[in-house]
Amino acid sequence: MKPRLNVITLAVKDLDKALNFYQNLGWPPADVVGDEFKGSDTEPAGKVAFFAMPGGLIFALYPRSELAKDANRPTGVPNSTEFSLGYAVGSPEKVDEVLAKVKAVGGTLTDRPHERPWGIYSGYFEDLDGHLWEVIYNPGIEVED
Amino acid sequence: MKPRLNVITLAVKDLDKALNFYQNLGWPPADVVGDEFKGSDTEPAGKVAFFAMPGGLIFALYPRSELAKDANRPTGVPNSTEFSLGYAVGSPEKVDEVLAKVKAVGGTLTDRPHERPWGIYSGYFEDLDGHLWEVIYNPGIEVED
Repeated sequence: MKPRLNVITLAVKDLDKALNFYQNLGWPPADVVGDEFKGSDTEPAGKVAFFAMPGGLIFALYPRSELAKDANRPTGVPNSTEFSLGYAVGSPEKVDEVLAKVKAVGGTLTDRPHERPWGIYSGYFEDLDGHLWEVIYNPGIEVED
Repeated sequence: MKPRLNVITLAVKDLDKALNFYQNLGWPPADVVGDEFKGSDTEPAGKVAFFAMPGGLIFALYPRSELAKDANRPTGVPNSTEFSLGYAVGSPEKVDEVLAKVKAVGGTLTDRPHERPWGIYSGYFEDLDGHLWEVIYNPGIEVED
C-alpha cells in the first residue's frame, strides 16, 4: 500500500442539506449518482454526491446509515474530533473571509481564528454534520485563492 | 471557498503506534515535526506526523486529545462510521492483496471484499484507531499499483 488517497467520503445525515451547504460555500454542482440502487435493511443504497477536487481526489457525501451498511459497521454517535480537513488559503485575511462565509451559510465556527504557536494562522469550523475543517494560512503552502 | 483539500488529519490515540501501522503497510517514513511545542491543559501540543501524498495532499496523524484542543471541541467517543478514505487499486486481486497485508500488520477487516451493486469490487478495513479505509477496484479509476 502506498500513501495515496483517491476518495474521501463524509457521512451525512441528510444528503440534500449537506450538498446545499457545500454549494452555498461556492462549490460547483456535485455529480449525484447511484439513486437507482435503493438498498435494503442490510444492503446500502447507492445515492452519493461526488465533487472532483484538484489532484484527482474525489470528495464524496454519503448518508451515515448507508456508509455503516457498506462498511459492515454499526452507526455510532457522531463525533467531531475524529479527523479534520485542512483548507489552505493565501493570507490571514482570507482565513477570516472564508470563515465569515461559512458562518453566513450555516456552518459553526468553533473558536476565533488565531495564530498557532507553530506559526500558522487558522480557525476551525464544523459543517452541518459536525465534520471539522481547519482554514489555514501557512506561509509554507502556496495556493491560489 | 473552493472544492479543495490540502490536508487530512486523522485523530489517533498513540502517534508512534499509528505511524508504525502505516509504515508497516509499506508507506515511506513520515515527517514528524512540532515536538518542541509541548502544549498544556488547554493549548495543544504540536507533535504531528505528515505524509506527502500525490497531488500535493498532506496526510497527517495527530493525537486525538490535541486535535480536540486545537479545534476547541470536546473529545468524543471514537466512531468508525463518520467518514471513510478510498484507496483505489488496479484489479480485484490487488484489493485482496492489500487487505491481506493490512490484516497481517494489525488492521481490522470489517467484511470480506465483494462486488458492490454499482459495479466496483471493494473491501473495508479499520486502522488502529478505527478509521475506515475502503480498498477499491473501480474500472473507471486509473491507478498505478
